[in-house]
Amino acid sequence: MALTLNDIEKARDRISSYVIKTPLIRLQNLDSYLGCEVYIKAECMQTTGAFKLRGAMNKVLSLTEEELRHGIVAASSGNHGKALAYAAKMLGVKAAIVLPYTAAKVKVDTIRAWGAEIVQCDVSERFEVAERLCRERGAVLVPPYNDEEIMAGQGTAGLEIMEQCPGLDTVVVPVSGGGLIGGVSTAVKAVSPQTRVYGAEPAVLPRYTASLKAGRPVRVEPSGTVADALVSQIPGEICFPCVAANTDAIADVGEEYILKGMKLLLLEGKILCEPSSAIGIGAVLQGLLPIRSTDRVCFLISGGSVSLEQIARLERISI
Amino acid sequence: MALTLNDIEKARDRISSYVIKTPLIRLQNLDSYLGCEVYIKAECMQTTGAFKLRGAMNKVLSLTEEELRHGIVAASSGNHGKALAYAAKMLGVKAAIVLPYTAAKVKVDTIRAWGAEIVQCDVSERFEVAERLCRERGAVLVPPYNDEEIMAGQGTAGLEIMEQCPGLDTVVVPVSGGGLIGGVSTAVKAVSPQTRVYGAEPAVLPRYTASLKAGRPVRVEPSGTVADALVSQIPGEICFPCVAANTDAIADVGEEYILKGMKLLLLEGKILCEPSSAIGIGAVLQGLLPIRSTDRVCFLISGGSVSLEQIARLERISI
Repeated sequence: MALTLNDIEKARDRISSYVIKTPLIRLQNLDSYLGCEVYIKAECMQTTGAFKLRGAMNKVLSLTEEELRHGIVAASSGNHGKALAYAAKMLGVKAAIVLPYTAAKVKVDTIRAWGAEIVQCDVSERFEVAERLCRERGAVLVPPYNDEEIMAGQGTAGLEIMEQCPGLDTVVVPVSGGGLIGGVSTAVKAVSPQTRVYGAEPAVLPRYTASLKAGRPVRVEPSGTVADALVSQIPGEICFPCVAANTDAIADVGEEYILKGMKLLLLEGKILCEPSSAIGIGAVLQGLLPIRSTDRVCFLISGGSVSLEQIARLERISI
Repeated sequence: MALTLNDIEKARDRISSYVIKTPLIRLQNLDSYLGCEVYIKAECMQTTGAFKLRGAMNKVLSLTEEELRHGIVAASSGNHGKALAYAAKMLGVKAAIVLPYTAAKVKVDTIRAWGAEIVQCDVSERFEVAERLCRERGAVLVPPYNDEEIMAGQGTAGLEIMEQCPGLDTVVVPVSGGGLIGGVSTAVKAVSPQTRVYGAEPAVLPRYTASLKAGRPVRVEPSGTVADALVSQIPGEICFPCVAANTDAIADVGEEYILKGMKLLLLEGKILCEPSSAIGIGAVLQGLLPIRSTDRVCFLISGGSVSLEQIARLERISI
């Protein structure tokens, strides 16, 4: 059964007292760089630093007390784990977070500080490890994206975007497994069918471009990327049909352009985000999206978990 | 004659097509750090990177063609110079900018790029040098703060704050010569007399605390400060009475707390500003302002001219 506007509206009611209605900000100083009227949805200002809390909260709040008795487990490249750890702490539930050795230290430290158990492994093994933990403990696995409640939660960001800035021409969304863009594109198209929704994924991990071409989820080779929150190798099978139905195009963005986007947003837009979140801006800088100068374009800035060290490394990047 | 709401409203009409109505942003993630409901007025997102364009544009637009014939001259620690250079470029007027050797390189480069002539000197000599240039050339000196048209222009930020977030309890404003807080406090008190207006100046340059105590502008010893846009040694004599009449208190903020404020705003608020602009947040972190947990407090974030190098140096600062 496909995700509907009604699911997303229910999620909004369920999570509203736990998440921030993040600001939608007009960034006029970026117009000349991106060739359009620039807006951002600042999910980097969300509690736990990323949109992930929306889906995580919606999922945990939809579980019964009995289901939550042995705790929850998540496999995550970082922000999903942070969101789950925070949700578990708030609701008094035990949580174990499985995350790859490559996860940013700032994310790992935060998860630990919220009292969750941390289990680290290779990025390719993280789902197996999480499943084994669930079997051993009777805990509930909360998937990072391939789940209707998760997608419905993420979709609430799309509802807010269209409420905060009705009549937007375009919304650009970072893409990994498809939880965020699946939810957001479903919400946006339901409310405003003429608004275009574009996705942006790392060119080194083109799982959506490959899958949309094939008409089914296709697994791509693993790869490192500066967008360390966008490392899924294959679209979620529950996410894929939502994305296929509601997305106008996917851009495959080069590593350099992702960092150019981050630096531009920081130094000219005055907004700090993690590399993954700047990928939509990178897509436009690289000339990959058909944007017109009169278009009102909203970039969903998905998260802001980034260290001063990572910021300092932008020195070598030219905008 | 004292500055009035009418002067500021006229300035708003005069400059509206040249300046950005910058966003007023709710930063919920800072509430627990600052002990209040946190808002910012993001003048770091203003054209030229700072509020200074408001006053500069209002001043230049109030001069006659004859007065502008031999160009304009400004003495500035950076942002005023940038604003003047930009205004001059837009209006086709010749500009010379006098600025101290200590001005941030990123500011100097930008001024040069906008086609203005640059004259560098010691910070204590900058007004003399500017006056000499005016005498030699017949050019018009545009003062950075001690001028009614300049103050009226800066005051438009105050009008916008109260329009964007009516009923604010408190507005906190960075203080140097008094142009910004003079204009903003006049606007805020005229529109909403019960809203408190606090100023924040570097403790190493306590020119307003000393002057308010003395009841007249008092010159303090020169000093270096991380707040390199707040280096005035004495209140402007035109600014002083406006500030005295409309400001509830001035906080003298320690250097370390200015940088703590900048780091907090960047890493937790996701907003990039220059050190000077974070001084109001620093004042609250240092416990210098009587803020209650239910107060809605807007920090005027005056500018965002900052380099990656300066950001990297925040590593040694603890929040």
